[in-house]
Amino acid sequence: MAQSERVTAAVLIIGDEILSGRTQDTNLNFIAKYLGTFGIDLGEARVVGDVKAEIIAALDALRARYDYVITTGGIGPTHDDITADCVAEAFGVPLYEHPEIISMMVARWQGELNPARRRMARVPQGASLVRNPIQGPPGFQIGNVFVLAGVPAVMRGMMEDVGPRMRPGAVVISRSVRVDGAGESAMAAPLEAVARAHPNLSLGSYPFFGPDGFGSNLVVRGRDEAEVVATIEELIGVLDGVGARSITREGYEPPQN
Amino acid sequence: MAQSERVTAAVLIIGDEILSGRTQDTNLNFIAKYLGTFGIDLGEARVVGDVKAEIIAALDALRARYDYVITTGGIGPTHDDITADCVAEAFGVPLYEHPEIISMMVARWQGELNPARRRMARVPQGASLVRNPIQGPPGFQIGNVFVLAGVPAVMRGMMEDVGPRMRPGAVVISRSVRVDGAGESAMAAPLEAVARAHPNLSLGSYPFFGPDGFGSNLVVRGRDEAEVVATIEELIGVLDGVGARSITREGYEPPQN
Repeated sequence: MAQSERVTAAVLIIGDEILSGRTQDTNLNFIAKYLGTFGIDLGEARVVGDVKAEIIAALDALRARYDYVITTGGIGPTHDDITADCVAEAFGVPLYEHPEIISMMVARWQGELNPARRRMARVPQGASLVRNPIQGPPGFQIGNVFVLAGVPAVMRGMMEDVGPRMRPGAVVISRSVRVDGAGESAMAAPLEAVARAHPNLSLGSYPFFGPDGFGSNLVVRGRDEAEVVATIEELIGVLDGVGARSITREGYEPPQN
Repeated sequence: MAQSERVTAAVLIIGDEILSGRTQDTNLNFIAKYLGTFGIDLGEARVVGDVKAEIIAALDALRARYDYVITTGGIGPTHDDITADCVAEAFGVPLYEHPEIISMMVARWQGELNPARRRMARVPQGASLVRNPIQGPPGFQIGNVFVLAGVPAVMRGMMEDVGPRMRPGAVVISRSVRVDGAGESAMAAPLEAVARAHPNLSLGSYPFFGPDGFGSNLVVRGRDEAEVVATIEELIGVLDGVGARSITREGYEPPQN
């Protein structure tokens, strides 16, 4: 695979509970890191409520634009769980009760399948199942869309069956230095100069605010590890004059000279 | 104000660090809760990277559709901070150095304004400033868009100056019961029956998975507190037969009979 090949994904988080502030989402962060290990760039994320038209519009926008879309939430048995209906409508196919899910449910509940449970057995025609190693019914994949649970433990378990189905990209290597006791405005000019000298890399400055005032994490990301590491060292060199209290390499050993 | 009046907002989170998984966003959750206290419904959120075309497209889509848009991130002094440029371009106005910000900076840094600091003084023509009570330059408002810092402590401080500028809606009252030891599929039918009987309310089921298997938080939301509280009690009544280990009211005292 060429190093320049970029594989992209988007995440669609479905659920009123995120938008009302009731629940702090952590699924996006997990998925972002997980995709990173496959070299897949997360290009965008959206959060929408339990509203059919909104879910379909967001799904259609994202699946047309990115190589993969991962949805979380809305696949349970209650009346507000409408993700499967929306995905089927977006793809223009009917839902049907998947015999394998029905079999799993019959085995688990000794045949007691109430309508709510049967609701969770519905998948769009043409979908394949995504294994749920935790508890409850599986997720599914249709086209470039993976439909997962919203409960974090279950979503994480399902991701184990999603990663291997994706075409991997070239993994992005990320290294950072933490600068304490100096604000971004002192570092902006040297940082920009280094960024311009390395157009293949992405250099970011992520400020934080603590008891000592502002500091920043400077992050170098790219697909060539040697260049990333060399650039971090270059950055540490040019930051010598900015008056920082400390400059700390994070997450890797500096090259031995 | 009529109780039926709905005021809406969207959040646009700007920053590669969220999409790479480096940073766990907490700003969305804070803003969602904060808007709730003003009766403003958060209708949608998007996360985009530090890419001009993406930021402008998302901003234009959201500001056309919602009463207010709040952006976080990308207003610092470094080369990857491009939010002000994007907002100005979306509104079709130039950026200029705001004299009040320049004055603040001169006072703070005894006149030492390097180009990186001056970069943070730029706001779109026609914008008003959003006070920053923590440290660093202010945010700004232009039209229905509020542009805030991404650093959580600073963003939270700035929100104090945002809330009072918004037209408030009727506050949504939320009450919940926690059901342990029973899965959603046992509760789906009674929950849906109660939901159908109260079309003014929103009833949600938010499952969790723990050592005892699945349980769920059932949430009733609406703008009439008496109806919300009565509906929670109605729900507890109909859940009597689902075999839960415990049903616990959360966040309020049940009505005294």
